[in-house]
Amino acid sequence: MGSPNGGAHDVACGRGAGVDDFRYRCVIMEELAREALASIHVGLTCHDDIVGPYLRDLCTDEQRKRWLPGVAGGEIITAMGMTEPDALIHLMERLPRERLALAYFAQTVAEHALAWTVEYTRTRKAFGAPLASLQNIRSKLAEMATEIDVTRTFVDAAVLALNDGELSATDAAKAKWWASDMQIRVIDTCVQLHGGYGYMMEYPIARVWQDARIQTIYGGANEIMKEIIGRELAAGG
Amino acid sequence: MGSPNGGAHDVACGRGAGVDDFRYRCVIMEELAREALASIHVGLTCHDDIVGPYLRDLCTDEQRKRWLPGVAGGEIITAMGMTEPDALIHLMERLPRERLALAYFAQTVAEHALAWTVEYTRTRKAFGAPLASLQNIRSKLAEMATEIDVTRTFVDAAVLALNDGELSATDAAKAKWWASDMQIRVIDTCVQLHGGYGYMMEYPIARVWQDARIQTIYGGANEIMKEIIGRELAAGG
Amino acid sequence: MGSPNGGAHDVACGRGAGVDDFRYRCVIMEELAREALASIHVGLTCHDDIVGPYLRDLCTDEQRKRWLPGVAGGEIITAMGMTEPDALIHLMERLPRERLALAYFAQTVAEHALAWTVEYTRTRKAFGAPLASLQNIRSKLAEMATEIDVTRTFVDAAVLALNDGELSATDAAKAKWWASDMQIRVIDTCVQLHGGYGYMMEYPIARVWQDARIQTIYGGANEIMKEIIGRELAAGG
Amino acid sequence: MGSPNGGAHDVACGRGAGVDDFRYRCVIMEELAREALASIHVGLTCHDDIVGPYLRDLCTDEQRKRWLPGVAGGEIITAMGMTEPDALIHLMERLPRERLALAYFAQTVAEHALAWTVEYTRTRKAFGAPLASLQNIRSKLAEMATEIDVTRTFVDAAVLALNDGELSATDAAKAKWWASDMQIRVIDTCVQLHGGYGYMMEYPIARVWQDARIQTIYGGANEIMKEIIGRELAAGG
Repeated sequence: MGSPNGGAHDVACGRGAGVDDFRYRCVIMEELAREALASIHVGLTCHDDIVGPYLRDLCTDEQRKRWLPGVAGGEIITAMGMTEPDALIHLMERLPRERLALAYFAQTVAEHALAWTVEYTRTRKAFGAPLASLQNIRSKLAEMATEIDVTRTFVDAAVLALNDGELSATDAAKAKWWASDMQIRVIDTCVQLHGGYGYMMEYPIARVWQDARIQTIYGGANEIMKEIIGRELAAGG
Repeated sequence: MGSPNGGAHDVACGRGAGVDDFRYRCVIMEELAREALASIHVGLTCHDDIVGPYLRDLCTDEQRKRWLPGVAGGEIITAMGMTEPDALIHLMERLPRERLALAYFAQTVAEHALAWTVEYTRTRKAFGAPLASLQNIRSKLAEMATEIDVTRTFVDAAVLALNDGELSATDAAKAKWWASDMQIRVIDTCVQLHGGYGYMMEYPIARVWQDARIQTIYGGANEIMKEIIGRELAAGG
Repeated sequence: MGSPNGGAHDVACGRGAGVDDFRYRCVIMEELAREALASIHVGLTCHDDIVGPYLRDLCTDEQRKRWLPGVAGGEIITAMGMTEPDALIHLMERLPRERLALAYFAQTVAEHALAWTVEYTRTRKAFGAPLASLQNIRSKLAEMATEIDVTRTFVDAAVLALNDGELSATDAAKAKWWASDMQIRVIDTCVQLHGGYGYMMEYPIARVWQDARIQTIYGGANEIMKEIIGRELAAGG
Repeated sequence: MGSPNGGAHDVACGRGAGVDDFRYRCVIMEELAREALASIHVGLTCHDDIVGPYLRDLCTDEQRKRWLPGVAGGEIITAMGMTEPDALIHLMERLPRERLALAYFAQTVAEHALAWTVEYTRTRKAFGAPLASLQNIRSKLAEMATEIDVTRTFVDAAVLALNDGELSATDAAKAKWWASDMQIRVIDTCVQLHGGYGYMMEYPIARVWQDARIQTIYGGANEIMKEIIGRELAAGG
């Protein structure tokens, strides 16, 4: 699989064929989320959101020609080697795209997790009636559906802003911490509603639960996101 | 003050001058919120969102002519007399507009409360430095700003859907419970950040705190909103 | 009403008759809470927990003789005049007793609020059945009952520790922030379960809701409590 | 390892040597928690809290003589085979002991998790200073320490009540849901404070995070615990 969209491929090939639309990438994330394939998404975001743009923006022309075609074509798989002091600063400077990718993935995973759980509670019976006939269960489904829908409008707006080159570091930080926190809250409730099955790796809900936990830690820990937002507010932004 | 927009006035006067845009009403809510005038908003929403549409939709022509001009012009101030069994059902059938009004008011009050609190924490000093220089304070400001921004995109989308006649009862219920819960969470934190001043009625933050509590109770208690949403999910909606 | 217990009266009268047991004071708090009389408790805690011990510990003998008999007998009603820089430090040095009083009052108010709410939901009918027959309502009652019982064991242990002269500043801080946060959470839910009645001052639940909000702000804001506890942990305590 | 305490061994051997004190079992749980050995504890609680007492209470004398010596001595490892309709009812009738075991294990795991995290944040440096020098970190440590200490007093009281044969089903349910919820909240925060290390299985905090999730599901899901408590309240208990 080559790079689904984005500058790396275009710059490498000199095409710029109008495919720099983050929504293509979103489609891929939705398909990965449907199959609970978070680890593949992590590889993709490293390759496509982090290393790709770095090569594009920080390399010499010669380096670009040497690396980007293979990166864009999928023959070269990139990775990161971080040393704490400096790499961190570079990362903090240009991470809106990666952060939005994490936020969008959080969003779509949460949506799938809810869909599985609605299905499960509609078909699974306890005491002769579907779980979803219990008021408490319905109430939790309603809370999750709301939280997911509310977040969806914000994440979608951020995608359009990114496409327009207008997604601020602050808004990307908001999307990242909020959506990843939401993802974990939602999935945690979904696991609980699945009962014992929610803790068995045969069920996708168990796998997305295990995979989700890193989302508030990497890509800039959520505490760092709040620091970015808070500083702007404190400075009068 | 006459009815800021909406069918009552138009139907009454036979004009239909293209002013059935809920955003006019939103402007009024924003101005009321700025001055912490929740009680006026309650009167407005009763008059304009509940009684007005009821007169318009459920009256005979004669009744409409008798009541609506005065209602729209502001000479007649309406009120509700609810008897539990039936009135409640009528209310539940046609409340998307009222619920969105409560949600929008929640949104704009929360935004003003945060603005006051950002200002307060930037200017108020403790131990020789502004409160906003404390990491904990900044973190809380960041959380509130995010929650408010996320909710704003959802509420705005719901306003446009209402204008298009496409706001479902379920989405109105989501907007109502989520925004009013958010309003109370945000204001509660703002009160805390104001310290002792947050509990003095001379400060607007104390007044909006006291006024906000009813928002999760009326207009359909938030538990009822979740029931509306949950039933649709349980039914396969 | 004179001072219910405590050193002020004993020192003043030279008796030391073995009544320095904080549980007498707890009885008074329970009776005040039953009648939703938070403002009287505030006066009592100022008089008996703050000013009294200060007069006893920091005065000259002559001052003690002049003031304490009236303070203990109730003829002299004390008050505080705080100037921010210094008074604050003195307060922070010797507040375990006051903080425990606030915690204990929070506990007993929460217990009464739950009792009113259990009674209300058992007798109030909706759709032909008591509110308490709804699963969601029962679940909330169960959560509150648990939170209250868990906190009760901690607060009671702190009262015994105070009696033994062994209540640390850190443990008093834990009791203060935890119990006051719990009080507000519980009362907020109780208001919600009362529906519209929960927002009417004729009902005690509305009055304790309004009175409770200051509890996390005064007596050392809860943020300060966490700072006291956190510093000890960070220092290896 | 034989049965650490409890009736099984005593009944089997006809000794009754005064060792039916649940605190011996607590010591074992504390040692297992220190090494993050939740899976061993699960085996122990099945063997010692569930199957053992069932054999003791529900068997014929002949069956007791046949099974209990091996069970108590550790030569026979027991297991459960549950069929949903009936076995569930038996379990619900006599689970205070098992539920308290889960609660106590939750408590001691949370305590160890906090201890590891305090140590980590005191020694790990970011930007030249220990993590624990950041106000936000200290605040989270303080919240966890408080929540743990508050729960400890309740769990300890429940252990003594069990020893006295006076632990009610309701109080066991309170201990079970509250402590397991607390365990998960605390560990989740501890993982976050460990950053990337918190998600690596080489660190005990990652292992206890993974193991903890089942605690709110088995032993009677926490929703069932609340139903037990709520029904008593609704019935006037």
